[in-house]
Amino acid sequence: MRTQVAIIGAGPAGLLLGQLLHKHGIANVIIERQSADYVLGRIRAGVLEQVTVDLMEELGIGQRMRQEGLVHDGVELMFKGARHRIDFPSLTGGKTVMVYGQTEVTRDLMAAREAAGLQTVYEVGDSVRLEGFDGGNPVVRYRRGGQEHVLECDFIAGCDGYHGVSRASVPKGAIREFEKVYPFGWLGLADVPPVSEELIYANTERGFALCSMRSPTRSRYYVQVPLEEKVEDWSDDAFWNELRLRLDPEARERLVTGPSIEKSIAPLRSFVAEPMRFGRLFLAGDAAHIVPPTGAKGLNLAASDVKYLSDALVEHYGERSAAGLDHYSERVLRRVWKAERFSWWFTSLMHKFPGEGEIAQKLQEAELDYLVSSKAASTAMAENYVGLPL
Amino acid sequence: MRTQVAIIGAGPAGLLLGQLLHKHGIANVIIERQSADYVLGRIRAGVLEQVTVDLMEELGIGQRMRQEGLVHDGVELMFKGARHRIDFPSLTGGKTVMVYGQTEVTRDLMAAREAAGLQTVYEVGDSVRLEGFDGGNPVVRYRRGGQEHVLECDFIAGCDGYHGVSRASVPKGAIREFEKVYPFGWLGLADVPPVSEELIYANTERGFALCSMRSPTRSRYYVQVPLEEKVEDWSDDAFWNELRLRLDPEARERLVTGPSIEKSIAPLRSFVAEPMRFGRLFLAGDAAHIVPPTGAKGLNLAASDVKYLSDALVEHYGERSAAGLDHYSERVLRRVWKAERFSWWFTSLMHKFPGEGEIAQKLQEAELDYLVSSKAASTAMAENYVGLPL
Repeated sequence: MRTQVAIIGAGPAGLLLGQLLHKHGIANVIIERQSADYVLGRIRAGVLEQVTVDLMEELGIGQRMRQEGLVHDGVELMFKGARHRIDFPSLTGGKTVMVYGQTEVTRDLMAAREAAGLQTVYEVGDSVRLEGFDGGNPVVRYRRGGQEHVLECDFIAGCDGYHGVSRASVPKGAIREFEKVYPFGWLGLADVPPVSEELIYANTERGFALCSMRSPTRSRYYVQVPLEEKVEDWSDDAFWNELRLRLDPEARERLVTGPSIEKSIAPLRSFVAEPMRFGRLFLAGDAAHIVPPTGAKGLNLAASDVKYLSDALVEHYGERSAAGLDHYSERVLRRVWKAERFSWWFTSLMHKFPGEGEIAQKLQEAELDYLVSSKAASTAMAENYVGLPL
Repeated sequence: MRTQVAIIGAGPAGLLLGQLLHKHGIANVIIERQSADYVLGRIRAGVLEQVTVDLMEELGIGQRMRQEGLVHDGVELMFKGARHRIDFPSLTGGKTVMVYGQTEVTRDLMAAREAAGLQTVYEVGDSVRLEGFDGGNPVVRYRRGGQEHVLECDFIAGCDGYHGVSRASVPKGAIREFEKVYPFGWLGLADVPPVSEELIYANTERGFALCSMRSPTRSRYYVQVPLEEKVEDWSDDAFWNELRLRLDPEARERLVTGPSIEKSIAPLRSFVAEPMRFGRLFLAGDAAHIVPPTGAKGLNLAASDVKYLSDALVEHYGERSAAGLDHYSERVLRRVWKAERFSWWFTSLMHKFPGEGEIAQKLQEAELDYLVSSKAASTAMAENYVGLPL
């Protein structure tokens, strides 16, 4: 089998890239470790930047998002027991974000891919091997249904996440990895109507809490917990009690509780691999970088990565110019590091860090106090939250 | 002896308060541990915010500052080997800072105090005792020339710095202290013509460097060093070599070196004591809070403290209202924490922290990259540097 671009991973990054390439007549095949249902079962972020919304529209698959997604004009920051609103449109010249679950984005992309008759090879497990990308003839080998397959291609796009085979295929000496693991995790719980129309990010002396949502009837709540905690030790009641203690009286009263449909502790991590290009292999999304979820940059960063990558590939095939491909890594990484910076900053601002002493809480409160009282500081926060320009 | 306000400490905070009170007809006496020459010998910050400049003008002692001081319209931030300018007036509606050494401020204030015939008692050493400030009749006791003296007063203003007797006189249970000690110090050196017309703050992989100045012919250079380093182990040559390695080629070439007239390693610290009022004792300046020197907020914060304090005392004596005094601590601390936040942020952004890993440097560079490329972020930096409004 032969294609122009072999895409590893059928998550939103890989699917989005596939559609963008297809729109410009570039053939592509996606190879995915798991089944489509498994991919759709992964619950992830749900806040889309304008850049990501625009990409969906550009691909002609924005209809359901427009109908079911929630346009959010701001967020609420809670500290010292009171909430303060950051208004996006007035600070950013009219920009907003769209609350629309990653699962829904993936579903829309899968439907569009199927409608276009593009090939996705699911359930190849751990059999994938990337070869020859340092020369002119890259090859993807995998096993499916007991048979060996070979996919020849011009380029490989590694969109297979942090644990994927793409980054792991790069020789150790060719890659530099930067990492920070935070000394806490998020304990998350769904699935009841949201306490507020907008997201609430809460800084409290007991630790961070987030009131988030996927739709008008489905919330996602999170509380910061020490990394050592086990999800089995948190009953639903214990979770709701802890969340209540981290909210203001009004939110506490409005809070609708219920049984959890999904409860997990997710660790927080900042990670970047440099460069993001190795010969004819290009990394995009979580395969090259991880942000902590505070600020919901993960999916959006994957979207901008593949936008840059598809532009570069279109330029290569159309204008026979390697300039876009040559600058891909540098161009993408500049934006990646800004989002890493924002996610790290917002995480550091909102969470309680063990062993940092009482002054850390006071400095966070002073920063939040400054943030909500200075137009410049509010604007800096807002312009990052809605997404810096490409 | 009796006065209305007994001021402990003849540094800029105490002297400024004395002049402000005198202007409104409120009697005051300053008690100082050291001699006037000793006080003048302490080399400190030299960047005045507009608020501080305005106070000097309000007191009619701005003439020499206007003649000899240097108006600075911006600073340069160096990172990844290149300098980027932050322009204050265009970002803050015309604001600037004034480079005029703390020693000169102190000298002008001392001259004004002498001209007004106000009493300062120097060289009382460690003999000062503050009593009765929790009741209605505070008293300052001290020894001078082998004799015991008693100064009766309505109020005591503790302007005697971090190590002074004022804060130490407060019962432990009545005060909360917040502190952060940074794992590095500044090695400083004078006294040659400045390398640049504006200050250069440099973030480098070898650590922070600052090219600062007091006048067109007197620079102050600093390099970040580990706290364990001893000043004796740093020859002038070693200092100049290290500084050169932290500058860009242009600055390196322009750098004029020479013998040091003063070389010291200063530790960096963030510190706040809450509250700042205890009955009839009010703390102001370094007696209540310390900032790391990055951003030069120490003297300016002392100036705004005593501005608030003199306003409150004028209100007390003039309108017989305790409102100003009652709100002093809360009002001042809100501004103090914002300056603490800025100084901590700027210190964290520019210094190399041991044990933080390579990602820390990359996140700093990403933040600096964002800072110089976003108008909102540049404005937030500039509005803090020139001083937030009172």
